[in-house]
Amino acid sequence: MATDPVIGRGRLKRLARLDQGKVRRELGLRLIEGKKLVDEALAAGCVGELFVREGAKEAWQGRAAGVPVHVLPAHDMELLCDVKTPQEVVAIGPLPEPVSADSVLRFAEKALLLDGVQDPGNVGALARTAAALGVQGLLAGPGTADLSSPKVLRASAGSLFHLPQSAISGPGELSGLLDVSGHRLVVPVVTGGEDIRNVTPPPSWVLVAGSEAHGARVSAEGGLKVTVPMARGVESLNVAAAVAAILARWLDPPTCARP
Amino acid sequence: MATDPVIGRGRLKRLARLDQGKVRRELGLRLIEGKKLVDEALAAGCVGELFVREGAKEAWQGRAAGVPVHVLPAHDMELLCDVKTPQEVVAIGPLPEPVSADSVLRFAEKALLLDGVQDPGNVGALARTAAALGVQGLLAGPGTADLSSPKVLRASAGSLFHLPQSAISGPGELSGLLDVSGHRLVVPVVTGGEDIRNVTPPPSWVLVAGSEAHGARVSAEGGLKVTVPMARGVESLNVAAAVAAILARWLDPPTCARP
Repeated sequence: MATDPVIGRGRLKRLARLDQGKVRRELGLRLIEGKKLVDEALAAGCVGELFVREGAKEAWQGRAAGVPVHVLPAHDMELLCDVKTPQEVVAIGPLPEPVSADSVLRFAEKALLLDGVQDPGNVGALARTAAALGVQGLLAGPGTADLSSPKVLRASAGSLFHLPQSAISGPGELSGLLDVSGHRLVVPVVTGGEDIRNVTPPPSWVLVAGSEAHGARVSAEGGLKVTVPMARGVESLNVAAAVAAILARWLDPPTCARP
Repeated sequence: MATDPVIGRGRLKRLARLDQGKVRRELGLRLIEGKKLVDEALAAGCVGELFVREGAKEAWQGRAAGVPVHVLPAHDMELLCDVKTPQEVVAIGPLPEPVSADSVLRFAEKALLLDGVQDPGNVGALARTAAALGVQGLLAGPGTADLSSPKVLRASAGSLFHLPQSAISGPGELSGLLDVSGHRLVVPVVTGGEDIRNVTPPPSWVLVAGSEAHGARVSAEGGLKVTVPMARGVESLNVAAAVAAILARWLDPPTCARP
């Protein structure tokens, strides 16, 4: 077993500041907290170094082949953790390589645009739901919570380690991209869009998840406006629930239908 | 205009403790924070008293006909608020009258069982989504976050002021209830259930939202197990997303289909 590198308290303190977007961009690293998330990140090859609490090393040594494993006392683990109860394991890994939005759209027939979704929990939940229900790529517009923040990664349950993702600068860039890629923009609106029970999904599409406060900021002109029918007296759905509802209606037909 | 009652600092401090379940049950009251939620609560007749920040009284006096309005300086509003940024308005109102589970099921053809959902954000989101997508009643099993906690109410966006709701003691009580009511129990399972793309909803049902850590604890025996098909490599959906997906598939057919 290779001897693991020693980690100084100064470096640890710098890494603890990876909960700040500015520091993540400076160091080119992100924090990955907790067993489940670290397991996903290891499987996806997204881990650079591992930090485990005293006593838990054996469990991780095998899983983390080729990755340096640092053993830390509980109070140092606390320093690294964004959540109140310190985790058994925390990893750091490189920020994902920047990918251009047009390569995301070349790859993904079904994509989700985060159009200024501010709440990290919503952003993570949207990524998780999108990945589960068939979306193959993410675009993040201005004002969207940082896809590499610890809160977003936690709520995404690892899906962000797999989904191709790109930032876009705004509506202008998007409309240029769609002209080339041929994806149809799909904009959920609270009322007045096509009822999702009647809509056949276009062959390739970019579904818009609008901001919590202001809804979609991209122009719906030329796009397909869709509406999730709601019970009387209900004002709106949370953005993550609305996207889950639309994606559930648009699941591919079963490959093997029951008789 | 009636003179509003004076509120002492001692009473304010007691009310501030309404973020604790024990205190809510002792006083028979719940806290309702923020403009949107208070508006919903007023419309639903769920407000007993209103607390508004200095300068905001006029805006609320008219809307809160017959309800005492206390004007408080910002630091006292802070005391009452569960969130960090103090709200312009906070209300207190009586806890909902206890309703028996069998009356909820007599009223609701479509009901949701919160089967130990612990996270207040998830419980609120589930109530909001359920109300929007046609669910008419809620049952809360043991271990579920308190439906009257400030966090749950916030995440529910007011839907809990309208949805009939009842606590149930556990699987035994539930199965007795279902025998009488004739509702079919519907249990989402990660794999091996009927694909939701193929399932026709039973005439009346209780859909189970399982706990985040352990899934459904009620027995699926005799119930209908359903599975949301997921993309390869994705382990699971968040409980609120899974419920949104199932409810979206089960929306009533449009009353007025497009040609």
